[in-house]
Amino acid sequence: MGDSEITIARNYHVGAAGRLVMDTLPLTGAYTTYAVQETSPALPDYVTDSAASGTGWATGFKTSNGRISTIAGSTGVSPLTTILELAQRAGLRTGNVTTAELTDATPAVLNAHVNERACQGPANMAGCAVYKKEVGGPGSIAEQTIDHHVDVLLGGGRQRFAQTITGGPHAGKTVIQSAELQGYNLVYDEVGLSAALAGKRLLGLFNNGNMTLEWTGAQAAPFPGSGPQVCTEGQRELLTNEPSLAEMTTKALELLEGDDDRDGRPGFFLQVEGASIDKQDHVENPCQQIGETIAFDEAINVGLEFAKRHPQTLIIVTADHAHTSQIVPVVSASEAFPRPGFLSTLFTHDGAKMTVNYATRAHLQSQDHTGAQVRIAAQGPQAANVAGVTDQTDLFRTMARALGLMR
Amino acid sequence: MGDSEITIARNYHVGAAGRLVMDTLPLTGAYTTYAVQETSPALPDYVTDSAASGTGWATGFKTSNGRISTIAGSTGVSPLTTILELAQRAGLRTGNVTTAELTDATPAVLNAHVNERACQGPANMAGCAVYKKEVGGPGSIAEQTIDHHVDVLLGGGRQRFAQTITGGPHAGKTVIQSAELQGYNLVYDEVGLSAALAGKRLLGLFNNGNMTLEWTGAQAAPFPGSGPQVCTEGQRELLTNEPSLAEMTTKALELLEGDDDRDGRPGFFLQVEGASIDKQDHVENPCQQIGETIAFDEAINVGLEFAKRHPQTLIIVTADHAHTSQIVPVVSASEAFPRPGFLSTLFTHDGAKMTVNYATRAHLQSQDHTGAQVRIAAQGPQAANVAGVTDQTDLFRTMARALGLMR
Repeated sequence: MGDSEITIARNYHVGAAGRLVMDTLPLTGAYTTYAVQETSPALPDYVTDSAASGTGWATGFKTSNGRISTIAGSTGVSPLTTILELAQRAGLRTGNVTTAELTDATPAVLNAHVNERACQGPANMAGCAVYKKEVGGPGSIAEQTIDHHVDVLLGGGRQRFAQTITGGPHAGKTVIQSAELQGYNLVYDEVGLSAALAGKRLLGLFNNGNMTLEWTGAQAAPFPGSGPQVCTEGQRELLTNEPSLAEMTTKALELLEGDDDRDGRPGFFLQVEGASIDKQDHVENPCQQIGETIAFDEAINVGLEFAKRHPQTLIIVTADHAHTSQIVPVVSASEAFPRPGFLSTLFTHDGAKMTVNYATRAHLQSQDHTGAQVRIAAQGPQAANVAGVTDQTDLFRTMARALGLMR
Repeated sequence: MGDSEITIARNYHVGAAGRLVMDTLPLTGAYTTYAVQETSPALPDYVTDSAASGTGWATGFKTSNGRISTIAGSTGVSPLTTILELAQRAGLRTGNVTTAELTDATPAVLNAHVNERACQGPANMAGCAVYKKEVGGPGSIAEQTIDHHVDVLLGGGRQRFAQTITGGPHAGKTVIQSAELQGYNLVYDEVGLSAALAGKRLLGLFNNGNMTLEWTGAQAAPFPGSGPQVCTEGQRELLTNEPSLAEMTTKALELLEGDDDRDGRPGFFLQVEGASIDKQDHVENPCQQIGETIAFDEAINVGLEFAKRHPQTLIIVTADHAHTSQIVPVVSASEAFPRPGFLSTLFTHDGAKMTVNYATRAHLQSQDHTGAQVRIAAQGPQAANVAGVTDQTDLFRTMARALGLMR
């Protein structure tokens, strides 16, 4: 969600002169997102993936693409301590919320350590031999996520948690069964989420894979592209019983808020990911990309409302990397030279046309992340640290200071 | 010079973990850059050009692409007052420096008003009938630039000033002759610039067209692209007697600094443009684009050094719009699906490869500006106004307050 993706969503949904909720955060800067190379960790990889960039902000250390909070180039088990782990050790409550699978890279970097992001469930461990439970390792991302005893886990990826554990004390059980044995309340839909009470850990698995998209519309197409189109909103609500990202955020905050006066616990750490902004940019779907950006913006609003009642809350809104989509001059089929990219023209909130271009990869071959620095915005204690140009790894220290874990 | 162009230059010249001079400015934000439509000025045009965006920050009003500080949709002479004009009226000194022609859009928006940016010299007035001097208009951009009595004017575009004036009191004279009659000292090279003394207005015209580029290298090419290459630096110095942007900035500050204690004048307004970052992005030249970004960065350093001695100086570093170039994963000729864009791979300061992609237009058809919000960074009085998300037109008010022109 680089500046381009933010501007696309703003133009479409509230108009060029309108402002998103995320636009209202008072302190802003840019941070660099580069990864390092697996075979030469002293060298940068200028285009990061979500695993390496997530490891950057979650641990304060750069790693190589594909790694989940482990050390670039290492062949053994090499965990890098995460901000969520530090928060837990200090007695803080923790939460992890996403519209992707809960075992996808961004949630994983907080509560798992594995050499390859594909190792999401016990049946997906081909690339992570030394991490398998049967050889004494910590297991797949799904297993580690549960074993970490994160207080609130909400997202997709039920398929990973339905897999059978192959080693350790819970061998032969599914990860879901293991979660129940470890004190998790399981919920599978919006009604279940809404009814969930405090007092137990909560695991919400709302889809076998990624959660259902909010909006739909035509994919970008070769010159002169698809559209002009207006996006169809409300698909998730119409077709599923899945909660929105805002609803998940509301419940997570309700459960994590606790009662500091009563139990003396000093607060919480919560990560909320609007995961499919990226996924829909990869597949050249402007409406879906925008719908997920707006859903993320509504989740930010939930956080800002919470912060009104708890002004000691640090809220950070950022992205792990920039992406392909660009706003270009409105395309016309009569142009003499066909444009090289894959295009879609949208009718925006302003009543004007906006053409979006996807052109880093061949059509339908998964458009690329890009290497530009991305926006970081914040409010609350330590928020001023995001101003200027920082690196993704600096965010780890900013959060640690705000949580009282580092001085 | 969006976030992408800044990151490309940083990665190449100082490495991903290095920092440019512009990165050190303490207060940062993003601003929206959209223009409005000429035929329907209530509607946005999501991709601005330098004329409309320059008008935005120079006057505080949005206009349509191509217009130089005039009102969108107007058919008569319709000047919008500029920050430079307000500064002059308040007795401040003024300067305007660029590596483009002095009559190009960005310098023009400060000291000229015309309906079409192409009307650069008295012989280029075909599209600006009502602005012609012979019908009582203010004349071309070159004529207006001189008639505005800006204290320091440095850049390219000698060809425009060599044209003959066709109306008014200086009809039959060239714009250069008119400048001399209006008290300008004329210089044409680095030596002349260096020797220029205070006490007279200064007009430096260092090239017939745009000034010579600092660096050279291979243009981007269709898949798998040009390179891997290392850029050739020092071309301007080797081939010409033109000053660098940093040298022009140094001289401009020397002449504008004045002696406030002695003459009681309350300071100055200076605009400095690294114009060919954009121009070389249009023509898919990564080395040339980077070289101009670094030359701009060196000019920023001159400004920051000045501000150390004059801490009441507001310095703003921004761009008029985002652009095409993107950092993408390093390209390989063996990829199964050729990429759609025009690519070049560079060996960077880090000793790593970086691939840059240009893909908004067909090869060699002038790549497009893009509509993403862009970075704005500042230090000094009123600098905090750049934080968060603002609009380009807000910058006019920020500068006006810092100059004491608006309270």
